Formats: sequence, structure tokens, C-alpha cells
Amino acid sequence: MQEVGCNHAQMVGFSTDGFATTHTMRKLHLIWVTARLYIEIYKYPAWSDVIEIETWCQSEGRIGTRRDWILRDCATGDVIGRATSKWLMMNQDTRRLQKVADEVRDELSTYFPKELRLAFPEENNGSLKKIAKLEDPAEYSKLGLVPRRADLDMNQHVNNVTYIGWVLESMPQEIIDTHELETITIDYRRECQHDDVVDSLTSYEPIEDAAGLEIHGAANGSATSPKDVNKSFLHLLRLSSDGLEINRCRTEWRKKPASI
Amino acid sequence: MQEVGCNHAQMVGFSTDGFATTHTMRKLHLIWVTARLYIEIYKYPAWSDVIEIETWCQSEGRIGTRRDWILRDCATGDVIGRATSKWLMMNQDTRRLQKVADEVRDELSTYFPKELRLAFPEENNGSLKKIAKLEDPAEYSKLGLVPRRADLDMNQHVNNVTYIGWVLESMPQEIIDTHELETITIDYRRECQHDDVVDSLTSYEPIEDAAGLEIHGAANGSATSPKDVNKSFLHLLRLSSDGLEINRCRTEWRKKPASI
Repeated sequence: MQEVGCNHAQMVGFSTDGFATTHTMRKLHLIWVTARLYIEIYKYPAWSDVIEIETWCQSEGRIGTRRDWILRDCATGDVIGRATSKWLMMNQDTRRLQKVADEVRDELSTYFPKELRLAFPEENNGSLKKIAKLEDPAEYSKLGLVPRRADLDMNQHVNNVTYIGWVLESMPQEIIDTHELETITIDYRRECQHDDVVDSLTSYEPIEDAAGLEIHGAANGSATSPKDVNKSFLHLLRLSSDGLEINRCRTEWRKKPASI
Repeated sequence: MQEVGCNHAQMVGFSTDGFATTHTMRKLHLIWVTARLYIEIYKYPAWSDVIEIETWCQSEGRIGTRRDWILRDCATGDVIGRATSKWLMMNQDTRRLQKVADEVRDELSTYFPKELRLAFPEENNGSLKKIAKLEDPAEYSKLGLVPRRADLDMNQHVNNVTYIGWVLESMPQEIIDTHELETITIDYRRECQHDDVVDSLTSYEPIEDAAGLEIHGAANGSATSPKDVNKSFLHLLRLSSDGLEINRCRTEWRKKPASI
């Protein structure tokens, strides 16, 4: 199970590190911050598999950019995963978001594909799904997580891989043992620093019926509990001190393939 | 600084993962456990540098094996690091060490170099240095470290990279900011599992004078404190509950090269 986090790290981290700020951004003390990250993994690479990652970047409205990835198994050419992310521009000194100035967009657009291209071209794809707020009290929790030195990036903020690891900390062990992560969506709300203490909360995502009503238990006397069929979870990472939301996350899990 | 742990992980972990148990070992429920790991890094690779790692394995007395590594920068051919490790055989059921049976040694020796070959051929090389027990109380400490899911290996034990991370947790921040890790020696004493809580302790290593006496302060009225010249540390990871030693570590640090 630990490999889920690691794989995501290596796959996604790789390309993200190449995404530098432009000259004008540095002049104006502007940095990129991640607003949302969505990943779908169809097949986890095995030891010694060689993976090819294609990535590109383009405009996302007036206030940000998006970066997409497609992951392929080099040996077969099969697409084994796709990912997309939204980035906003922040002033490094004031920590406030701001619009992407035309000057910066001109610098960036040289590297944008000429035509809009999406890793998830389907309508209503998973990357667009809103993450509902997890209802308190959560069904599972792990309190008092503390950043370690290796969890911090160059800006002394907790890095994206650590966030995923923290989300997984409050997953029920029986799911971890029998399932693997299929999709993950993270909405980033707040930066987390070295001295912060963090709580990780997880609950099964309520299933909505056709009329949009939540089903909280086995409906109409059916013996099948929603938990038997529903393998989606809502997660919340928050500061232990004041309960402020660091990020909100949604995961979907599938049964692990039979091991060899 | 976080890269020190990561680099070690990638460099060392790579080759270690290829070190499987033999057929007879599996039949007899025997596994390899690390007794000591010693690493020297001369130059840290930069982003996008390509590294070549050579590794080999051979006998170490009657009771174990050793695995050595040499790390080279592909572009220049320069040796940028060397490492060696000692492994003992343990019965997976009884958790007791045992001698390497002739049958197993025969299986292994096919893969051993024909002639003894050492990554550290020099006499009195650093890999042989005994790690003194850190004196209580330690100068620096970080208490209550808790394993996360991603810290566990396939056997549900804390992995080697996490141990290095935990050792670094109790390093004084001013050294982390200005220095980089040059050598690390870890002696493994005890396995650590998911529910264990761990304390990380660090002190400057006492400097011995020619007569083997410890110098605890600035000697003979000199204005230079040993801490100004001595950048060696002793570390101890122990169980918070009963103080049992998990591992003992020694690190040496050098000034960071000026950044570009």
C-alpha cells in the first residue's frame, strides 16, 4: 500500500518540478500554488517497468493555468494513468492570490499547445466533481500528525506527497489491505508549515439516490449495506489547533488484482 | 536538506530491492536483516544528473554477507559516493539470527565476485569505526515519532530511509541549514513496527585527544570550542515506551558548497 503514495510521488512529482516560474513572475515575487490535483490510475507499474510521462500546460480561465499528464507503459504503449491539476498565482510576500498578468501569460503561452488539449476530454469526467465537506464526526481519524524535515519542500511548506500520505493515514486498514487507490482528488485550501499539527479525517462518501437524496443505511430492507458497494471516501486534513481546513480530498478504491 | 534522505533512499534502495532471498532461504523461512549500513557521499547529484550505481555482494565471515555500492556520475565518470552494508540471516518465525548454512552460501556464491572486492579497500576506513553509545542526556532530541503507513516495508517493518529521516529529525537546525551529510553509519539493533513510538536523540561526538581522553570543552584556554571544528554527531533511536535501542548512528557533516 505504501507504494500508492510513492508511485504518485514519482509520477506526478517528476513533471511538476520542471514547472518553473517565469522571469516576470520572479521579478514580481509571484509563485504558483496548486489548487486542485486529480489522478486516475488504471494499472500500477511493477518493479522494473519503464513508464513514459507526457505532460503539458495551458491556460485555465483568467486566473490560472492547468497542467495535464498522461502516463504510458513503455513496453505496451498502454495508458496506465492520467492526471490534471489547476494552479493559481500567488504573491510570495502577501500570500494573496492574484490574476495572471498579460505579461506573464505571454511568457507562458509560448509553451502552451496551440490548441486546447485535455487529458480528460470526456464530459463530466472525474476531475470536475465537487468534493463535499466531510460531516463531523468522521468515521475514521488519525490525530496529531507532525511534519518531518523530509516532508518540507524548498519553500518550507509540506509537499504534495506528504498530504496524500496523511490522507491515507486515516483510511480503514481493511480497505488498505484489500483495495488499491483508483482515483484521488485533492483541493488545496491552506499552506501547512513545519510547526503545524494536523488531523486526518476519513468517512465513506454518502451515496446519493436518483433523486439526489442521501442514503445513509441499507435502504428498503435490503441486506446490502452501501459500504459493501461504495468504495468512495471523503477526507479532510485540518489544523489540530483551530480546525482550519488544509485540504479536502476524495478517493475511490478498487479491489486489488490477485497477486502472482 | 530533505534531499539527503531522498538521495540515500534512491541510491541505496534501488540495489537493495534486487537482493532477494534464495530458494533454500524461503524454504527455511530465512530472511536477510541489515546489521550495518555505511555511506560516504562526495558530491550530491543535481536535478537531471544521471547516476550509475554498481553493486555486488559477497561473504562476510561465517554469519553474514556484505553488499557494496559505488556511485558514479554518468557524465563525468567521477565516483560521487560509496557504500557498504552487512547483512545477517534471521529466521522469520523465531526472529533469531542464525548461521548461513552451506546450502544457502552455495546458492549465493554464484553471484559473488571471484575475488574479494571492497568499495572501501583502504585500511582503517570509516565503515569499520565503532559507534560509541550516546551519553544521556542528549544535547538535542525529538520525542514521540510515529511510523506512517508509507514508512513500512513489505514485512510491516519501518524501512531504512525512515530511520535516516528520524535520525535527522533531532539534528540542530543550524547544522541542517549550513551543512550537508558527508557520511552516515547506522547499526541496526531492533525492528520497529507500526505501533511503536520512537525518540530520536543527537549529541556532538566527543573528540578524543591523542591519548584517547575526551575533550569536553575548549582545551588549554583556546578560544575555539570543539563544536566549531567537530562536525560529527552520535545519534540514538529508541523506543519511547521502554528505552530499548532501535539503532545507533554516527554522522559527519561538511559545509554546503556555495549555491549557484
